Amino acid sequence: MLISPSTLRTFTENIFKAIGCSHEHAVLAADVLLKSDLRGIDSHGVARLSGYVRLWEKKRINPTPNIRIVHETPTTATVDGDAGLGLVVAPFAMEVAIKKAELYGSGWISVRNSNHFGIAGYHALMAVEKDMIGFAMTNASPLVAPTFSSERLLGTNPMCYAFPAGKYPPVIVDIATSAAANGKLEIAQRLGMQVPEGWIQDKEGNYTTDPHALKTGGSLLPLGSDRDHGSHKGFGLSATVDILSAVLSGANYGPWVPPFVAFLDPPNDPVGAGIGHFLGAMRVDGFRPVNEFKNHLDNWIERFKSSATVDPDQKVIIPGEPELEAEADRIANGIPLVDAVVEDLNKLAERFEISELPRV
Amino acid sequence: MLISPSTLRTFTENIFKAIGCSHEHAVLAADVLLKSDLRGIDSHGVARLSGYVRLWEKKRINPTPNIRIVHETPTTATVDGDAGLGLVVAPFAMEVAIKKAELYGSGWISVRNSNHFGIAGYHALMAVEKDMIGFAMTNASPLVAPTFSSERLLGTNPMCYAFPAGKYPPVIVDIATSAAANGKLEIAQRLGMQVPEGWIQDKEGNYTTDPHALKTGGSLLPLGSDRDHGSHKGFGLSATVDILSAVLSGANYGPWVPPFVAFLDPPNDPVGAGIGHFLGAMRVDGFRPVNEFKNHLDNWIERFKSSATVDPDQKVIIPGEPELEAEADRIANGIPLVDAVVEDLNKLAERFEISELPRV
Repeated sequence: MLISPSTLRTFTENIFKAIGCSHEHAVLAADVLLKSDLRGIDSHGVARLSGYVRLWEKKRINPTPNIRIVHETPTTATVDGDAGLGLVVAPFAMEVAIKKAELYGSGWISVRNSNHFGIAGYHALMAVEKDMIGFAMTNASPLVAPTFSSERLLGTNPMCYAFPAGKYPPVIVDIATSAAANGKLEIAQRLGMQVPEGWIQDKEGNYTTDPHALKTGGSLLPLGSDRDHGSHKGFGLSATVDILSAVLSGANYGPWVPPFVAFLDPPNDPVGAGIGHFLGAMRVDGFRPVNEFKNHLDNWIERFKSSATVDPDQKVIIPGEPELEAEADRIANGIPLVDAVVEDLNKLAERFEISELPRV
Repeated sequence: MLISPSTLRTFTENIFKAIGCSHEHAVLAADVLLKSDLRGIDSHGVARLSGYVRLWEKKRINPTPNIRIVHETPTTATVDGDAGLGLVVAPFAMEVAIKKAELYGSGWISVRNSNHFGIAGYHALMAVEKDMIGFAMTNASPLVAPTFSSERLLGTNPMCYAFPAGKYPPVIVDIATSAAANGKLEIAQRLGMQVPEGWIQDKEGNYTTDPHALKTGGSLLPLGSDRDHGSHKGFGLSATVDILSAVLSGANYGPWVPPFVAFLDPPNDPVGAGIGHFLGAMRVDGFRPVNEFKNHLDNWIERFKSSATVDPDQKVIIPGEPELEAEADRIANGIPLVDAVVEDLNKLAERFEISELPRV
């Protein structure tokens, strides 16, 4: 069923208020989730709302956090999220990065004691709106095995780099550092389909096409899939995200990262606080005049879009383009939600005594 | 044959002096090439010396460049390399980044009008020696096709991230953003071997295992190899390197990047000057005390190294470890050079009337 963005937004704000968030935080957290649904990244939007609520029930999310800078220089800082929603902690940190960039050219923030921050692109785009280049990374629940390992030691640890263009939309590179994002596996599980070889291994480290293998001790594979095709590169990128987000800030890293799901307890020997993020902003005009940069990025986009292609019907896709098309469509026509998500959201509505979404 | 590092170093310095480099530049450029040979990255060391000389002959490398900052803020700058050797331009830029980081916490330099800078790891390690996190990227001759394209629009565009550890060596993630580096293809060509599927495509965009396919219009594939396995992620990372290195600095980007080989002329419609790099340094103590960071990174390394493995004889490799082992071995036992490289170097010696390397 299709839901209007404004209906879904108000609903989501009300749920965050119901668990004790301030009006300001509820509006911001809902904005991050809605942005994901609008951009077609259904796995990171309102489908996760009940997950955040369950973590709040377990007292693993603090609805009234005192988010603060605990260490800084003119262009770097460590932010402690006080166990708040990553959906509000990460925008706080990005605001700090942007202020530092306004004063000194760039700003870089490592964040500890946070939770899942939604889509990385939301935070990086905050910088792009100020004619800055935005960087956003986060570590996450361990699901990915390093090259040669049979253990889940890393999250799907996304990296996002976002660049403002001129007449074209921004270029937004927003990628999991695993071969496939967990959301794709969930879709295959729901549809009862096999997945391509190279996405996952079973608990002994054999390739499998069974999307349920994660539930029996299997793991996702790093980008590159196997050593011959560069899985050590995906591992290295994922390690980079983990170190910048958590070893640098004092958050948990590697297998110590607390799981996003409430039914799994965090490790009882933490090496830090919560999960970690890394956010950055650099002023374009710290390097060259903004209009020059944008003109050349437009030229870059045009050259790549008009490239000769293998299949005449499949043009080269500029990073960020599919999400932008989804956003235009969903603003106009509404956000499609599967029945299971609507049911899940309406259970929350019932519990917190707020208006339900229209039933199918 | 094995050559002692000091013999090879003096030889390389003499060649750079012979083409007109200052003593200081010759020593630095030789140090960058030697570091590559010592670390076992044979494709980026003295094997390329005659390539630099041929570019100098074509007046595409300026041996006496006026390398300078052309635009800056407290923590950002654009450096113009004046068509100098990337081997000296990139260390200049990294010194600027480190000075900015000392004053303000971080420093970020985009470089234009440069040439091939050797291994990215050399430059990133300059920051690590100062207890900083080092970043180094460069664009390169177009050899890689974006996802869905049959055209070579991007270089193997490496990204390097380097982190200082405590009792262990630094973690150094230094990766090409293509599925396979061009050096691996050259090895297969020399040995007359096929390469794995997923590394290259022919000029129509069909997968091929023929390592010579690049010479007949084929292209390397991005990290991820195909869309199902995330080649759009490798493309996105390569695009990020291209934009940070060249669109930001005013260098050539995409298919306009001048080829590293002298027998191919640069495009006659340049969109910028030379090739571009992006270098950065962030002080660890801009985020948390250095000893805390190093202790946790040591713990990270220990946990990953002791991970359960698929094959009991193949441990997890920490990024940077193989290069460090090569360096220890080659410092002790000498640098192995294949006959063709020795012949090539001795042709240079004859031409410039300097002492030859010992013949096999």
